[in-house]
Amino acid sequence: MIPAGGAGTRLWPLSRKAHPKFLLDLTGSGWSLLQQTLLRLAPVAASYTIVTGAAHRAAVREQVLDLRAQGLLPSKVAVHMVVEPSGRDSMPAIGLAAALLGVTYGDDSLVGSFAADHVIENEEEFIAAVRAAMGAATAGYVATIGITPTGPSTAFGYIQPAPTRVSPGALLVEAFVEKPNAELAEEFVQAGYLWNAGMFVMNAEVLHEHLVMQRPQLARGIEALVSAWGPLDDVSETAAETGEGRREALATHWEQLERVAIDHAIAEPVAAQRGVAVAPASLDLGWSDLGDFTSLPVGADGSVAGGGEVTAIEAASPIVSVPAGKRVVVLGIDDAVIVDTPDALLVTTTASAQQVKDAVTLLASQGEDGLL
Amino acid sequence: MIPAGGAGTRLWPLSRKAHPKFLLDLTGSGWSLLQQTLLRLAPVAASYTIVTGAAHRAAVREQVLDLRAQGLLPSKVAVHMVVEPSGRDSMPAIGLAAALLGVTYGDDSLVGSFAADHVIENEEEFIAAVRAAMGAATAGYVATIGITPTGPSTAFGYIQPAPTRVSPGALLVEAFVEKPNAELAEEFVQAGYLWNAGMFVMNAEVLHEHLVMQRPQLARGIEALVSAWGPLDDVSETAAETGEGRREALATHWEQLERVAIDHAIAEPVAAQRGVAVAPASLDLGWSDLGDFTSLPVGADGSVAGGGEVTAIEAASPIVSVPAGKRVVVLGIDDAVIVDTPDALLVTTTASAQQVKDAVTLLASQGEDGLL
Repeated sequence: MIPAGGAGTRLWPLSRKAHPKFLLDLTGSGWSLLQQTLLRLAPVAASYTIVTGAAHRAAVREQVLDLRAQGLLPSKVAVHMVVEPSGRDSMPAIGLAAALLGVTYGDDSLVGSFAADHVIENEEEFIAAVRAAMGAATAGYVATIGITPTGPSTAFGYIQPAPTRVSPGALLVEAFVEKPNAELAEEFVQAGYLWNAGMFVMNAEVLHEHLVMQRPQLARGIEALVSAWGPLDDVSETAAETGEGRREALATHWEQLERVAIDHAIAEPVAAQRGVAVAPASLDLGWSDLGDFTSLPVGADGSVAGGGEVTAIEAASPIVSVPAGKRVVVLGIDDAVIVDTPDALLVTTTASAQQVKDAVTLLASQGEDGLL
Repeated sequence: MIPAGGAGTRLWPLSRKAHPKFLLDLTGSGWSLLQQTLLRLAPVAASYTIVTGAAHRAAVREQVLDLRAQGLLPSKVAVHMVVEPSGRDSMPAIGLAAALLGVTYGDDSLVGSFAADHVIENEEEFIAAVRAAMGAATAGYVATIGITPTGPSTAFGYIQPAPTRVSPGALLVEAFVEKPNAELAEEFVQAGYLWNAGMFVMNAEVLHEHLVMQRPQLARGIEALVSAWGPLDDVSETAAETGEGRREALATHWEQLERVAIDHAIAEPVAAQRGVAVAPASLDLGWSDLGDFTSLPVGADGSVAGGGEVTAIEAASPIVSVPAGKRVVVLGIDDAVIVDTPDALLVTTTASAQQVKDAVTLLASQGEDGLL
């Protein structure tokens, strides 16, 4: 399953409410991040379930059908969609999708959750880690994939592995740790902690049992939704995911579901019960969550997207996105970040790249909805 | 007379070869700098002569006729044009125009030369200074207008006045001084030196006599041109300034004229002979040569032109030009200069504003003629 939400406001003005990060080709591959996610998982996916918001239903379906039309997704592999009436964080989305997959494919199905907007360069190493996580999930663990840190980042939560091997390529998880300060991050990396990229693999029934224990009310809400839903349909069956019974069930139950992340609802408490395993991925996985403009793949001239050209004079390491046919001249500013779109132009530096979201918040507070 | 040349490369990408600084409305007044120059001189001008390049002949004529059509130039005041086959610095242009004015209006006419791309806020004070210069010119001096410095700028040449009053509001000039370093600039301002803005007023015959003495060959070339030219026509007489005889004379003589500035050819040597006077303009003249983006009038939000909107976050004093309907967000960069046009985007800071011309030089060396 692929939760496809998140505005990617740190990538504004490329990423917008109407066409967020996961729908964009931010790596120049010719495919959106969502499409790349589907392609990357092909070796292990018996089906896909994309959980997204109503605003993106049409675009998501179009991108899926596009991949199929090009013969890049086998026609016998179903792609399902679950359309959330509103974002309620990751646990309701994953919990519902996992339960629906249980109904559709059997309670003992393995379900994996992978963000729609990450980049992974080394797909072979990724699939190896997913298979290791699947092994741990088959053994009854909630399994996660741990990213081997490339440095002491303060932008990610960490996973503390125990030295106990639970299955081939998987270790018991001691604890999940929140985003640290710089000093702690250094300690974590020294101690062999891994980055938490929010990837989980588990048996559908095991997940639901944990949910019943940890969040009984949320579990009941999901059960009610599932009983009204029935088995999942393929996206090619137009608008099936918004049929009458489902719409009614969502209207009744969705907004009652607790807004909580899977990390807090399941991963942390179950780890404390020694029920979580981690499959550490190879150091050369080449993973990125494309968290801000500094994490986009940058071409030799500093351009990251758009096709325009960059001329830098006394200006080291510019990061530029500009439409084809346009020239950007950066003069006397190091580490500039310049993102040009028809209606909005962002000029900042890598040091402020994380604060781009503040600009979006400010524009929202000014009622500039057209720019969001 | 108004020499209208100069690419204004420090204002790239607003100012381009095809539509240079003097043709642009850089102050949001609704009029180009050239048009503002014509309007500003109306109280003293019996006629206008614009000296410009062939590439800008059509645009200049259009802007003149536009002012006339709106009733802002009296129809009885002629506007002439002299089209230079190539730029040969200011002396050939001013020398030829002055001689042609002598032929047209009489040798004892007063001629004044004023750049087409300067801004003056206080037009009353300006006209007062021009009248004082006219008085000195009537008394036989080559008269210039001295700008009272607002600070110890190193961007301008200075005029050293003598304490000798030659006519109402005009002092004898001791010497013209090249652009100084910061230390000298400080001394000059303390000593009451004035900025040289390249404005000259003189009797047409007096100028020609100086030219015969100082640059005899240049004077002879101008005489040859004038004898083939005849009196000046109004711009409304289509293409009159490029008639057969004139074209031939230009083809024969123009490229032979010495490439030299009026400052070197006339002002400096004649000052040494105590033949130059200066009319110091009031301190609140509000003069600017719009030398780079830092000298453009900036609105409250930091925008200087174009009509777009600016949002600055942790970004003091941005200077932004962006098309209407577009939003610029500047984040975490103080003193940013951002100039957006359809095919070129400049991002720099005020500290590098003078180096914008280097970017244009670089683009030219790369054969990017379309961007110049």
